[in-house]
Amino acid sequence: MVGGGTVGGGVYQAIDRNALLIASRTGVLLKIKRIAVKALDEPRSVEIPVSLLTTDWKEVVNDPEVQVVVELVGGTGVAREVILAALEQGKSVVTANKALLASHGEELFKVAQENDAALFYEASVAGGIPLIRSIREGLVCNRFLNISGIVNGTCNYILTQMEALGHGFEEVLKEAQTNGYAEANPALDVEGHDAHHKISILASLAYNAWVAPEKVYREGISSITGLDIQTCKEWGYKLKLLGTVKHISREADVDHIQVRVAPTLIPQTHILASVDGVFNGVSVRGDVVDETFFYGRGAGQDATASATGTTHPNEPDSTGCCASL
Amino acid sequence: MVGGGTVGGGVYQAIDRNALLIASRTGVLLKIKRIAVKALDEPRSVEIPVSLLTTDWKEVVNDPEVQVVVELVGGTGVAREVILAALEQGKSVVTANKALLASHGEELFKVAQENDAALFYEASVAGGIPLIRSIREGLVCNRFLNISGIVNGTCNYILTQMEALGHGFEEVLKEAQTNGYAEANPALDVEGHDAHHKISILASLAYNAWVAPEKVYREGISSITGLDIQTCKEWGYKLKLLGTVKHISREADVDHIQVRVAPTLIPQTHILASVDGVFNGVSVRGDVVDETFFYGRGAGQDATASATGTTHPNEPDSTGCCASL
Repeated sequence: MVGGGTVGGGVYQAIDRNALLIASRTGVLLKIKRIAVKALDEPRSVEIPVSLLTTDWKEVVNDPEVQVVVELVGGTGVAREVILAALEQGKSVVTANKALLASHGEELFKVAQENDAALFYEASVAGGIPLIRSIREGLVCNRFLNISGIVNGTCNYILTQMEALGHGFEEVLKEAQTNGYAEANPALDVEGHDAHHKISILASLAYNAWVAPEKVYREGISSITGLDIQTCKEWGYKLKLLGTVKHISREADVDHIQVRVAPTLIPQTHILASVDGVFNGVSVRGDVVDETFFYGRGAGQDATASATGTTHPNEPDSTGCCASL
Repeated sequence: MVGGGTVGGGVYQAIDRNALLIASRTGVLLKIKRIAVKALDEPRSVEIPVSLLTTDWKEVVNDPEVQVVVELVGGTGVAREVILAALEQGKSVVTANKALLASHGEELFKVAQENDAALFYEASVAGGIPLIRSIREGLVCNRFLNISGIVNGTCNYILTQMEALGHGFEEVLKEAQTNGYAEANPALDVEGHDAHHKISILASLAYNAWVAPEKVYREGISSITGLDIQTCKEWGYKLKLLGTVKHISREADVDHIQVRVAPTLIPQTHILASVDGVFNGVSVRGDVVDETFFYGRGAGQDATASATGTTHPNEPDSTGCCASL
């Protein structure tokens, strides 16, 4: 593992606790060989034996006994170097890094394919929901007509609180920052960048073509007022930050799709309207299956750890589908 | 394929329409070689070329070019013979037959394992939801604490209509039979047998041990009155037929679980309460991921076809997990 923060600690804890269970189900005993961290003596929410720690990520990636590299540092700098170095050695990589995938996914999946290595990213979108696997495998016989999702827990928490308390955006944001539901610098979430990364990944996956983030319309929630929320409520709607991939037409074997992130009115009777607080919910409509809906925690230590922990070294057929994202 | 009825027609149509799409995603081009039906000249909702039809299921199972046998006849007689004959030849089998799996699953998975063949059953529970795959793979690093599901669309439709219209059970049942949402003999659904089969399958899968259906408590909805529904509503609940697998305790590496099907009060604020009409919804709580929730069509031509169509001959790692259910 590279990264021993909140999510890294969650992954360590989950594997420490359930390794035998996972082995009984998959035939593979996961063992964490080494964890690269910023500093050996940082305070951690989950205790990790010092003998596993190193401050040099190359000690993880270059260790010949390491078969799978889990990248959990975030950002698009070191994280990219780590992933490229691992893939170039033919090692499987697991990442939760949606910003990196959205901006450099085309490069990363190309390198993965060239080196016959697998790149897994279940935790990058809606961490606690096995959504990537469901789109890639469970619903594989469907042409996707619409994917609409509440994929940013911070925004959804703020909008839910604004409706419940009748408070304005700034007031609720401050409360969310105090409670740890929003970052000190909240722009990544409230301006829609995070949801934008995630919906770009889902669009790329569903249509097997690279969707460049700069072509995707993005609008956040920072200009939403208490009056907006109340008016929507009176009209029978909930206001949610929704990421949407919509199939527009198909001509000469080419699919035209519209991808966007924006505050959206959802009828109170639709199941997406019942997704409140920090939870995520994604509706997927396929031409064969009609509408399916997935719900769960989108982020946080354990939800992301659950998604990260699903991958094991002899995981099959992943290279093909993943590498072509 | 063995069986050319409603679901069989749906599978044929889905593969006919999306075979190239599926091939582009999986690398496998599905081709339907032969379909065994009761009579060649039966009326069908989906047109199937007569050249594909036969009335002898052995012509399907014994054809050396057939690699995967899809069993869609239902029941526990011929269906069992078909599946055993295919597995004994080492052929993969796909089935939507929950009654057969619940009653003979132990035998079928044993034969599958002995012959190194795979037995897939995604469509047997909550057809339109990739639930089996999510429990087996997507949530594999979780110990399951609770699985609670609305898994019978007929019962859910009846209870939804009773609440919406204020009518009694008998009246709504008749209307459901007229609309095709309930069978002429409704006992399999309304007495909870169908949900009972499904929750037994989910319990067996989640705990990797055979859960004998006769040990599972079962209660249907036929004695529910309009007054019951109204009283629940006034108290802030919805009444749903719920299948539940509940982890009770773990002692000396042995899990004690409670499995049951019964009308259950659900707080109106819980997401399961928003599952209305013929839809299915299943909440899965894991020790790592916390609560996740899956929603979609449970039955019908297309939803079941979507689940059935997900499996392809070189589907990986399935034998191990499946064979031990």
